[in-house]
Amino acid sequence: MSVTRPAGFRASGVVARLKSTGAPDLALVVNEGPRNSGAAVFTSNRAKANPVIWSEQVVKDGMIEAVILNSGGANCFTGAFGFQTTHATAEAVAAALEISASDVLVCSTGLIGVGDQVFRDKILDTVPAAVAALSAENAGGAAAAAAIMTTDTHPKEAVAESPAGWSIGGMAKGAGMLAPGLATMLVVITTDADLEPEVLDRALRAATRVTFDRVDSDGCMSTNDTVALLASGASGVAADEAEFTEALTALCRDLALQLQGDAEGASHDIAIEVVNAASEDDAVVVGRAVSRSNLLKAAIFGNDPNWGRVLAALGTTDAAFDPYAIDVSMNGVMVCRAGEPGDDRELVDLTPRACTILIDLKEGDASATIWTNDLTHDYVHENSAYAS
Amino acid sequence: MSVTRPAGFRASGVVARLKSTGAPDLALVVNEGPRNSGAAVFTSNRAKANPVIWSEQVVKDGMIEAVILNSGGANCFTGAFGFQTTHATAEAVAAALEISASDVLVCSTGLIGVGDQVFRDKILDTVPAAVAALSAENAGGAAAAAAIMTTDTHPKEAVAESPAGWSIGGMAKGAGMLAPGLATMLVVITTDADLEPEVLDRALRAATRVTFDRVDSDGCMSTNDTVALLASGASGVAADEAEFTEALTALCRDLALQLQGDAEGASHDIAIEVVNAASEDDAVVVGRAVSRSNLLKAAIFGNDPNWGRVLAALGTTDAAFDPYAIDVSMNGVMVCRAGEPGDDRELVDLTPRACTILIDLKEGDASATIWTNDLTHDYVHENSAYAS
Repeated sequence: MSVTRPAGFRASGVVARLKSTGAPDLALVVNEGPRNSGAAVFTSNRAKANPVIWSEQVVKDGMIEAVILNSGGANCFTGAFGFQTTHATAEAVAAALEISASDVLVCSTGLIGVGDQVFRDKILDTVPAAVAALSAENAGGAAAAAAIMTTDTHPKEAVAESPAGWSIGGMAKGAGMLAPGLATMLVVITTDADLEPEVLDRALRAATRVTFDRVDSDGCMSTNDTVALLASGASGVAADEAEFTEALTALCRDLALQLQGDAEGASHDIAIEVVNAASEDDAVVVGRAVSRSNLLKAAIFGNDPNWGRVLAALGTTDAAFDPYAIDVSMNGVMVCRAGEPGDDRELVDLTPRACTILIDLKEGDASATIWTNDLTHDYVHENSAYAS
Repeated sequence: MSVTRPAGFRASGVVARLKSTGAPDLALVVNEGPRNSGAAVFTSNRAKANPVIWSEQVVKDGMIEAVILNSGGANCFTGAFGFQTTHATAEAVAAALEISASDVLVCSTGLIGVGDQVFRDKILDTVPAAVAALSAENAGGAAAAAAIMTTDTHPKEAVAESPAGWSIGGMAKGAGMLAPGLATMLVVITTDADLEPEVLDRALRAATRVTFDRVDSDGCMSTNDTVALLASGASGVAADEAEFTEALTALCRDLALQLQGDAEGASHDIAIEVVNAASEDDAVVVGRAVSRSNLLKAAIFGNDPNWGRVLAALGTTDAAFDPYAIDVSMNGVMVCRAGEPGDDRELVDLTPRACTILIDLKEGDASATIWTNDLTHDYVHENSAYAS
C-alpha cells in the first residue's frame, strides 16, 4: 500500500526485460482525477538524464496525469536518440491512456550511457502491459514500488492519513549516489487532497529541503533524481496547507530514512546532528562536510570513535565557529569537550547500526541533521562491479 | 640522500617510543648556514594542530634554523597543554643547538587528540639523542626520512642538482588524508642555493600550487600539513629564481607522485587530466570533483571504465562547459564522445596501476591535472582500524 492508498490513483509494475534478472522493471502511476495537480523537484546536477530534461518541461504547467518509470538503464548521456526514447515513451503512455504526452512524467534509473534501440524497443513494447496491469488496489502500488528497485534490497513505501479525510502515499528507490541525488533516487508521492499546483509545489519544496536533501550517503549526486507529487482531489477535501506540508514532510523523512537504511553496503546509519550553529545554512554545511569524510566513515565502520576526523572535516568549512570551542559527542559520550579530549573514547559503543554524532558549534541557535552511512567493504565491492 | 644532499645541512632520525612499534619517530633537520632563509606553507584547514599554530609564527621572519618532526601523535586538539608541548620542544632543540626557539619549526603527525604528558616527556627526553645523532652524510637524511613515516610503506626522498652549482633535497611523508592535506603530509626541502626568504616563499608557493595542492587521494584535509623550505646558502651561488622555481617544482612533483604511489590501500594511481577548460581554476574544480567521486574510485578499483560517474561528478560543479559536448577518455580510449557513448568501453585496459582519465571540456585552452587514487578494500580496512 503506497501510491494507491489515496483515492484516484492506479499503479502497476511489469517486466520489460531491461534487467538481466528478469525482475519487474517498468512502473506506471496514473492520476484518475478529478484533479490532476502535480509538482516535482529534480537533481541539481548539470549533467541531467534525458527523462529529467523532459519531465522538467512536463511539470511546468502544474499538471501531471501519469508517471512512467523504468529501472535497468538511466538513459543519460545517450544523446538525441535517448531524448527521443523518452519522448516516445511518454507518447506511448499518453496514447494508451488517451491523455496528452505533455502530462506524462518519465523517470529512468540504472547505468549511465544505457539507452539504445534495444532499450527503447523493450520499453515501448511493454507499455501496453503496464497499462493493462493498472490497479487501484494495494497490489498495484506494491508492484510499482518493486519495479523501480535497482540495488535496493526491498521496496520503500509510506502512507499518511489525515483526520480531515485525505491521505498521502509514497514510494521510493535509491541505495547509492544518494546526495540528492544519485544511483538514483526516484520518488513518487500521491495524495487525494484537493490542492492547487502552487500549493503542492510549495509543500514539496519545503518537505524535500529538510528530508531528501539532507541524506548524503556517499557524496555522489545523481543525474536522474526526481521526486514527484501528484494530487487527484478525489477526497473532495481541500487540505489545510500547513497540515498537509507537515504530513508530507513526515512522509518524506520516513522514505529518506528508508533510503539511508538500505544504502549500498552500509553497516551504520549515521545521524550528524549539528546544533547551536549561527545559521541553518552553517549547520548544513558542517554536517555535509563531516558526512563526506571517507576517513570518518571508515572509522565508524570499524566501530572506532575517531573524533579527530570530525574536527578535521569541519575545519574545511567556512561556517562560523571556533574549532577550539566545539563539543563532539558520539552515541551520547562527549569525546571532545571545548576542542580537547573529553570523556574516555572507550565508553563509546558503536556496535549498533544507529549512530549519532552530535556537534555543538556554540555560536547560535540554529541546527540541522544530515543522514549518512559508513564506508564499508561491501560499499567498495558493490560499486566496483556495478556495470559488470 | 635527501635533505643532507645540499651543503650546510645535518639531519637525524631517532627512537622516542611514540610509536608502539619501536620504529624511529623523531627527526631533526638543522640548517648550518651561512644563511638561514626559510619559507613554509601550511594546511588551509581551520582546525590546525598546535605545531602548525607555532610554526606559522616561526616562519614569519623568513628564518628557519631547524625543523623537529615527530610521528606517533598529531598534537592537535590537545588544548593549551599541547601548545606548551610544542613550545617546550622548540625550546629544547634551541637550547641544545644554541639558537633561538623562534627559529625552530615543529611538525607532528599521527592521531588527533594525542599529546599528553607522556607524549611530551618522550619527545623532550629524546631531543638530546636527536641532536647527538645529527649527520651531514647521506645516512642523516635517510634516518630523518624514515622517522617521519606513519602508514607510509617506505620513505620518500628526492634530489635535484643545477649545473650552476646548487642543489635541492627533499623528504616527504603522507599516505592518507591527502588533499592537501591530511594523514598527514609533512615535507622538508633543503637547498644550498643562496636565496632571500622572499624568493624562497615565492618559489615554494608556485611549486606547491601545481604539485602538492593537486594531490587529492581521499578528499580529506589534514590538520597538520606542513611543507618547509630551508636555504643554507652554503654553495655560495645565488640561484636564478626562474631556474630554481622550475627545479623546485619538479622536485615537489616527484615527491607528490611518491605520496600518491604509496597512498593507503590504493591499487591505482589516477591522473585526472582536464584540458581545454575556460580557466585553470575551472580545470582544477572539475578535476577535484571527479577525484572525490567514491563511485568512480570504486569502479576504477574494479577495473570498470564507468565513464558515467565521471560526468555525474563534473556536473556538480559550476565550471564553464556544456555537459553534452564533453569527451572523456580512459587510458587512451574515448569512451564518451560529445556527451554520448563513444568507443567500446571493453577496449579500456584498467589493469595497470597507472590510470589516466582525460576530460576535454571544449571551452578554452587552460588545463590542470589532479592526482588521486582508487577506493579499495584495503583503504577501508586501514582506515577503519587506524586508532586501534
